Amino acid sequence: MRQNYKLTILYDGTRYHGWESKPGLPTIQGKLEGVLERLAGAPVEVIGAGRTDAGVHARGMVANVWLDTALTPEELRDYLNRYLPEDIGVREVRPAAERFHARYKAVGKTYRYTCYDGPMKPIFDRRYVARLEQPADEAAMGRGAAYLMGEHDFKSFCGNPKMKKSTVRRVDSIDIVRTGGYLTFTFHGSGFLQYMVRIMVGTLLEVGYGNLPPERVGEILAARDRSQAGPTAPPEGLCLMKVDY
Amino acid sequence: MRQNYKLTILYDGTRYHGWESKPGLPTIQGKLEGVLERLAGAPVEVIGAGRTDAGVHARGMVANVWLDTALTPEELRDYLNRYLPEDIGVREVRPAAERFHARYKAVGKTYRYTCYDGPMKPIFDRRYVARLEQPADEAAMGRGAAYLMGEHDFKSFCGNPKMKKSTVRRVDSIDIVRTGGYLTFTFHGSGFLQYMVRIMVGTLLEVGYGNLPPERVGEILAARDRSQAGPTAPPEGLCLMKVDY
Repeated sequence: MRQNYKLTILYDGTRYHGWESKPGLPTIQGKLEGVLERLAGAPVEVIGAGRTDAGVHARGMVANVWLDTALTPEELRDYLNRYLPEDIGVREVRPAAERFHARYKAVGKTYRYTCYDGPMKPIFDRRYVARLEQPADEAAMGRGAAYLMGEHDFKSFCGNPKMKKSTVRRVDSIDIVRTGGYLTFTFHGSGFLQYMVRIMVGTLLEVGYGNLPPERVGEILAARDRSQAGPTAPPEGLCLMKVDY
Repeated sequence: MRQNYKLTILYDGTRYHGWESKPGLPTIQGKLEGVLERLAGAPVEVIGAGRTDAGVHARGMVANVWLDTALTPEELRDYLNRYLPEDIGVREVRPAAERFHARYKAVGKTYRYTCYDGPMKPIFDRRYVARLEQPADEAAMGRGAAYLMGEHDFKSFCGNPKMKKSTVRRVDSIDIVRTGGYLTFTFHGSGFLQYMVRIMVGTLLEVGYGNLPPERVGEILAARDRSQAGPTAPPEGLCLMKVDY
């Protein structure tokens, strides 16, 4: 009997062309579907909560998939972990309600962006940290980040110039924490546009470097113009931590 | 003027053929000497506290090197970090006394070995953890480890069958800690023979799996025969944490 399953997935995105299946290219969705199609003997669609971009990581991606299998949820998790590559893992498989849809039912997401601006060189975590060329002032960035909280039109922070749907989103919180040379930005919000977290980080870093005053972030937001914002921060620092339902 | 320097080095050993220079193969010593020879314009010998094997990591390797350079120690550190590959870093460079020799003056070493026996799959730390096929009982391993503490002839735990020098070493402590599915073995001692930590771990894991009773470890030690001990645990779980002087 076909059953809907909720999967919680983690991956090191370094060598993938993002979440979404692309013919002939390694993607997370493609790897998951490949393993499940071998199990099911039929085409399978794995629906993710969202698309992470090439090189972006996840510790709490959620997906759902309809399957007809005699395996228990734990056996299904173990089967996936056995046949998936070493950089993709499944933390949990649970039977889900028929109406559960990983993308449509998501009501919030948490992303973390990690940078390093210290004198050392990240070695063991070098694939998961964006290394900065100069120190960034977290207090100034915190003042800049305040302008981004709440419900706004984030068109200036959208990487897709052809975006036709609404670019209004709600950012509930942005926490910036320094631990030695490590700076982590934790974003929680209703949802995020393409590259939105990375453009927010790239813009806040300009504030942190002293190239922009914090209040400029409010003006950039109001401009609704991508060219006013800072650069897109590199993918390796970004990780999808959690999806809320 | 030539000056002796003490370097504290960390590296991800995954893609190296160990510490010691080998013609035509990537090694940690070879990479360090290559960068310093470019700086010095002359051959340079980097003396390590010990040789780590292929695939073994370090967070606190110590080395010394004699150099004639106008750079300050901080500039020397930054120069090394800039030109070394992304998986080798230098935490500190300090001027050292003339008599300082990283190998001869070392009086103790700390190694950590990390395993995982949980139902999940290590993803972000997969290169630094040995994954076990079955759960290991840390209490039984602790009872077995007690036989290894103190000064003994560790011939049974030496990977070099042609070892002509003394195989007597002193192991001060072996701490085995479980955190969820992670098991860390921390060894402190006067020095360790080739593969000694990995053979001790491989033997203790046999105890942890229930294949050997804890008291068998004492008999293996007394036998002074490598064939009595367990297998050599894989290199990726091992990390040189600290060298004492």
